[in-house]
Amino acid sequence: MEPFQSKLAWFDVADPASPELDELAQRFGLHELQIEDCRHRPQRPKAEEHDHYIFAVLKHMHNEGELTFDDFDVFLGPGFLITVRNADRTVVELVRTRADQEGTDRLDRLFYMILDQIVDGYQPVLDNLADEISEIEDVVLDKPEPETLARIFFLKRKLVDFRRVAGGMREVVTALVRREKGLLGDDLDPYFRDVYDHIVRTVDLIETYRDLLSGALDIYLSAVANRTNEVMKVLTIWGTVALPLVIITGFFGMNLHLPWTNNPHGTEYAVLLMAVSTVAILAYFKMKRWF
Amino acid sequence: MEPFQSKLAWFDVADPASPELDELAQRFGLHELQIEDCRHRPQRPKAEEHDHYIFAVLKHMHNEGELTFDDFDVFLGPGFLITVRNADRTVVELVRTRADQEGTDRLDRLFYMILDQIVDGYQPVLDNLADEISEIEDVVLDKPEPETLARIFFLKRKLVDFRRVAGGMREVVTALVRREKGLLGDDLDPYFRDVYDHIVRTVDLIETYRDLLSGALDIYLSAVANRTNEVMKVLTIWGTVALPLVIITGFFGMNLHLPWTNNPHGTEYAVLLMAVSTVAILAYFKMKRWF
Amino acid sequence: MEPFQSKLAWFDVADPASPELDELAQRFGLHELQIEDCRHRPQRPKAEEHDHYIFAVLKHMHNEGELTFDDFDVFLGPGFLITVRNADRTVVELVRTRADQEGTDRLDRLFYMILDQIVDGYQPVLDNLADEISEIEDVVLDKPEPETLARIFFLKRKLVDFRRVAGGMREVVTALVRREKGLLGDDLDPYFRDVYDHIVRTVDLIETYRDLLSGALDIYLSAVANRTNEVMKVLTIWGTVALPLVIITGFFGMNLHLPWTNNPHGTEYAVLLMAVSTVAILAYFKMKRWF
Amino acid sequence: MEPFQSKLAWFDVADPASPELDELAQRFGLHELQIEDCRHRPQRPKAEEHDHYIFAVLKHMHNEGELTFDDFDVFLGPGFLITVRNADRTVVELVRTRADQEGTDRLDRLFYMILDQIVDGYQPVLDNLADEISEIEDVVLDKPEPETLARIFFLKRKLVDFRRVAGGMREVVTALVRREKGLLGDDLDPYFRDVYDHIVRTVDLIETYRDLLSGALDIYLSAVANRTNEVMKVLTIWGTVALPLVIITGFFGMNLHLPWTNNPHGTEYAVLLMAVSTVAILAYFKMKRWF
Amino acid sequence: MEPFQSKLAWFDVADPASPELDELAQRFGLHELQIEDCRHRPQRPKAEEHDHYIFAVLKHMHNEGELTFDDFDVFLGPGFLITVRNADRTVVELVRTRADQEGTDRLDRLFYMILDQIVDGYQPVLDNLADEISEIEDVVLDKPEPETLARIFFLKRKLVDFRRVAGGMREVVTALVRREKGLLGDDLDPYFRDVYDHIVRTVDLIETYRDLLSGALDIYLSAVANRTNEVMKVLTIWGTVALPLVIITGFFGMNLHLPWTNNPHGTEYAVLLMAVSTVAILAYFKMKRWF
Repeated sequence: MEPFQSKLAWFDVADPASPELDELAQRFGLHELQIEDCRHRPQRPKAEEHDHYIFAVLKHMHNEGELTFDDFDVFLGPGFLITVRNADRTVVELVRTRADQEGTDRLDRLFYMILDQIVDGYQPVLDNLADEISEIEDVVLDKPEPETLARIFFLKRKLVDFRRVAGGMREVVTALVRREKGLLGDDLDPYFRDVYDHIVRTVDLIETYRDLLSGALDIYLSAVANRTNEVMKVLTIWGTVALPLVIITGFFGMNLHLPWTNNPHGTEYAVLLMAVSTVAILAYFKMKRWF
Repeated sequence: MEPFQSKLAWFDVADPASPELDELAQRFGLHELQIEDCRHRPQRPKAEEHDHYIFAVLKHMHNEGELTFDDFDVFLGPGFLITVRNADRTVVELVRTRADQEGTDRLDRLFYMILDQIVDGYQPVLDNLADEISEIEDVVLDKPEPETLARIFFLKRKLVDFRRVAGGMREVVTALVRREKGLLGDDLDPYFRDVYDHIVRTVDLIETYRDLLSGALDIYLSAVANRTNEVMKVLTIWGTVALPLVIITGFFGMNLHLPWTNNPHGTEYAVLLMAVSTVAILAYFKMKRWF
Repeated sequence: MEPFQSKLAWFDVADPASPELDELAQRFGLHELQIEDCRHRPQRPKAEEHDHYIFAVLKHMHNEGELTFDDFDVFLGPGFLITVRNADRTVVELVRTRADQEGTDRLDRLFYMILDQIVDGYQPVLDNLADEISEIEDVVLDKPEPETLARIFFLKRKLVDFRRVAGGMREVVTALVRREKGLLGDDLDPYFRDVYDHIVRTVDLIETYRDLLSGALDIYLSAVANRTNEVMKVLTIWGTVALPLVIITGFFGMNLHLPWTNNPHGTEYAVLLMAVSTVAILAYFKMKRWF
Repeated sequence: MEPFQSKLAWFDVADPASPELDELAQRFGLHELQIEDCRHRPQRPKAEEHDHYIFAVLKHMHNEGELTFDDFDVFLGPGFLITVRNADRTVVELVRTRADQEGTDRLDRLFYMILDQIVDGYQPVLDNLADEISEIEDVVLDKPEPETLARIFFLKRKLVDFRRVAGGMREVVTALVRREKGLLGDDLDPYFRDVYDHIVRTVDLIETYRDLLSGALDIYLSAVANRTNEVMKVLTIWGTVALPLVIITGFFGMNLHLPWTNNPHGTEYAVLLMAVSTVAILAYFKMKRWF
Repeated sequence: MEPFQSKLAWFDVADPASPELDELAQRFGLHELQIEDCRHRPQRPKAEEHDHYIFAVLKHMHNEGELTFDDFDVFLGPGFLITVRNADRTVVELVRTRADQEGTDRLDRLFYMILDQIVDGYQPVLDNLADEISEIEDVVLDKPEPETLARIFFLKRKLVDFRRVAGGMREVVTALVRREKGLLGDDLDPYFRDVYDHIVRTVDLIETYRDLLSGALDIYLSAVANRTNEVMKVLTIWGTVALPLVIITGFFGMNLHLPWTNNPHGTEYAVLLMAVSTVAILAYFKMKRWF
């Protein structure tokens, strides 16, 4: 819980359950409900201006492969910055490095960097999603298989969650851009607007991806309908060609006084009859453009 | 109708039809239409600031299993708190216990606790719903059966009701957060905002659940389409394989001068013919990747 | 056209085409376009504050069974209330009775009563709709028949109209609640808000009903898809079981040198072969859980 | 280009390409971009207040049968009214006649009449649409034929255009109702509001028609699904009844030592067997309520 | 990077990565984040008023055939205009020519021309889309083939992108129309409004195209359903006609004491029986209007 940089009052709490958080709450006068918010996860993303400080619940990407999110809580007050997170140090490390490079000692700039870092963290996931959806689109028209369907629905479900998180984050950034209090320097305005552009673009992309997945589902369904139609046609053509042959062979199998029974060319005539019927039926379907 | 705690003027009316309510209405100058609202249930959730008091119609979860709701009416005025409810004591008991623990004697805080308790009461239902939807999603792709369909539609219908109730409750809490009158202390602001966050999250989840159920329905329909396609393919492959055999056996059953009739190996030749035709057709379907 | 009650200047015009309306228009300075609105029915529901009076086009339920509506026009000015309606006296009679019971002589209260009466008139229709939709939902999963489909579409169409009327009426009541002029007494505020709650609840219910009908349509379609799938399976199982038998009997009908022809147990062997093939196929489908 | 009535400065330009329009533009100081708008058709409906005059692009129904629209441009300034149209004189003639009857010499009233006339011109089309949709609804459940489908899609496409035009016109009228400049007399307020009601009703009806057409499409699709189901059932019942007969006749056609071959009643026994199998299968389907 | 016209301070940067851009940024005090926006493409379209200048990210059509877009960044300040683009000179050349013709030396007018030119560049693409959709609509009802489906989905996907770009551009133009700062002369107001009309029309058309494509997809799916129904009917009719013939021929092939076996007209009787059964079945389907 020691400040990262001696000159900065940044307190990083890696375990929301630890008593350190209570100490900080008492020392800086943080509201009990917000401490509760830090501990009862997940919360919705939000940014609240409370008396003398800003409290924000952010959502950082926890595990790219599974597209899961975790809360990242920030308190920014005059002279202190408190971050409450889970065991994953990535965001904090990256911001720390960047702050060291810049040599900044401003808490509001650190706050911006955290926000920027978290929103930047969505980018690789968006790229992965784009790739995966492209792949699905390539596959779905040719091979409409249940596995593809399952993948579509899995992604759809993930996007529903992602949309909710990104929408909430957009509200958070909007609230910060429109803030009135003097905790965030005015010179940071373009930077917060930049983060805003970024998160709006993210929400846009998610919407686009949902549209594309819905399109892929439509493709899937129409491809299945098409295939059923194809299967039906094969069955119908084949059955229609075969039935006359069955009837003809049946006819000459009757134990009645049939024609051609004593004719040595009878079989040839019968086969000719079958050939004619087959050709006629195939010609008919050809005419109807069934194949 | 006696006050729960001697020091507090909280009147709890367990039967809206009782004349006690009329007495209270006269004593505290409550509007006749609002008394009617208490008696003609169900009403839409609402919060009205009337002259000197606040009147709110809340919705508490009445029966988790069936996801039914009942009205819970509250009048909060200077020096009095009146709750009108059905026979179910749960909410009142829980709030009473909590107030005793805190040792509070503020009516506005009691009002907050009631609201908080009612909104908290939605949580177990949301959890149950999440479980049930997960279960449906697991089942639906493998076994698209009519019972699953019935379950999906049952849940969908329940969610339509729940959405309506939760949406109304959100409006109620919004109205209370934005209130102007001095009946609710300013120090309760963070608490009401906390309830607001909670109910917004509830509405969000319900929307997500509806999306998931719609997705499950889509899965169901595409799984049925898939299965019909599979069934068709089995029929088509089988019919296509069998028909040549039927024709061949029919051919050699004709009472004409057939080849091979006197050949002792005739049957073997015929069977060979059948085997060739079967293999050829199966190879064709294999090539077309039908199985 | 005589006032109902001597002390009240309520003029009730039962036939919009009658010259009485023109006389009243001249006497009280009503605008020609609004008189035209009374005569060219149907109009959209609306409430206009014109110079010195309020003009409202309301929609009362004309025929419950067919869910049809008719215009009910009201002019409320200082010292006069004019209602223009079709031959149906119901609303006017009910309001008259209620006014007599209350002994009121205020025109604005009469205006409220008319509005309340008309909106109350929607309730029995809503109840009928709820019953009918419940009935459809019970029927549709078990017996997806075209008649059910026709009923669903008939109700859907009716709800489209009802939604339009109720939405318009909501706007009317909103306009009256937000009115600025002094024609309606401030003490009627809670009453108009009560009507507002009522009409909002009506619109809510109509939306819910539309959702439920859409759900019922989805059930219908998936039930039909299911049934087609069932029918296909019966055909496929049956065809798959029968075809080997046809081939076997055909085989032994060939006029070739067949095995078993001189064997007295030949038939038994053949029947055994058929039984084995049948059992094998049924076992296969059982394994695939087709039935 | 001569004014219609000597006392009125109404200039009617029947060909937007003519140099007359340029002369008028120079004489009355019209903006070059608006002259371009008159010439590059089609434009979106709009109403602009420019410096000293109002410029409006209206859409009049050009050809009822095909539901096509054409631009009708109006400039209204102090002392001049300019209409720019295509060769179709209908609107201008009708307004001229009405103005002569009224004996009006006010340009703003003429402007209102043009707007009113154009919006009135939508009514017969709406009536035609209502008739056609009713007809489709009657036909679609009984005879779901591709021609009906084509009609539905043709109307849908037309409604998409009509919706766009009517929506634009609604914005135009809204802009005129909310105008600030003094070009339109205040006494015309109720008249413009009347046109507004009319165009809102038009948009409402178009929306309703679109809902009805979507409903008709749903009916079509479910009727086709139903019919496919019916066809499948006929095939399945028939095939299921026939196959045992084929097997039985095949059985007694085998060249093996069969029972009943020497029994003079053998044929009767076989026929009896067939009859029993047929009755049993039909009874089974009857029990399953397939027909 | 030299100014195009000596009298104008228009700097055209053809490669965002070039150090020229950094020089310009330093010289005119451009914000680092905006320089980054120029370099990290693609950005969302936007217009920002920053301190003393306007920064706009526009989207010009890069490749009509593939409907791809590229960023076109503009900085407009007092006395300078900077455009940052990719290697494609088209827009810049066209604006330069137009400016030369007009002989204008105003930077704000150049800015307008760039915007106008870019939005005009969407028109040929919209026309192409309209043609292609018309073509698809003509084809889809007659020949519902997978290639048509693929084309529909390809266009849908393109329209999703186009919609996003055009929607963003609309916001940009809205922001410019509502600008407060004095960088753009008031006399350009009608010109910016003209561009606004143009881009709104573009968005409208894209929406219409999406509706039409959705309609085309519906047509496709219903055409496939129809065709499956047709195929089923052919199979069912044919199977139903053939099965009695199979049974009859099978009957007379039985090795039992059959009727007509010694009757020289037996075959004729049997054929007559078959003809009667065929005619009866065809008459039945005719009656049911199956063909």
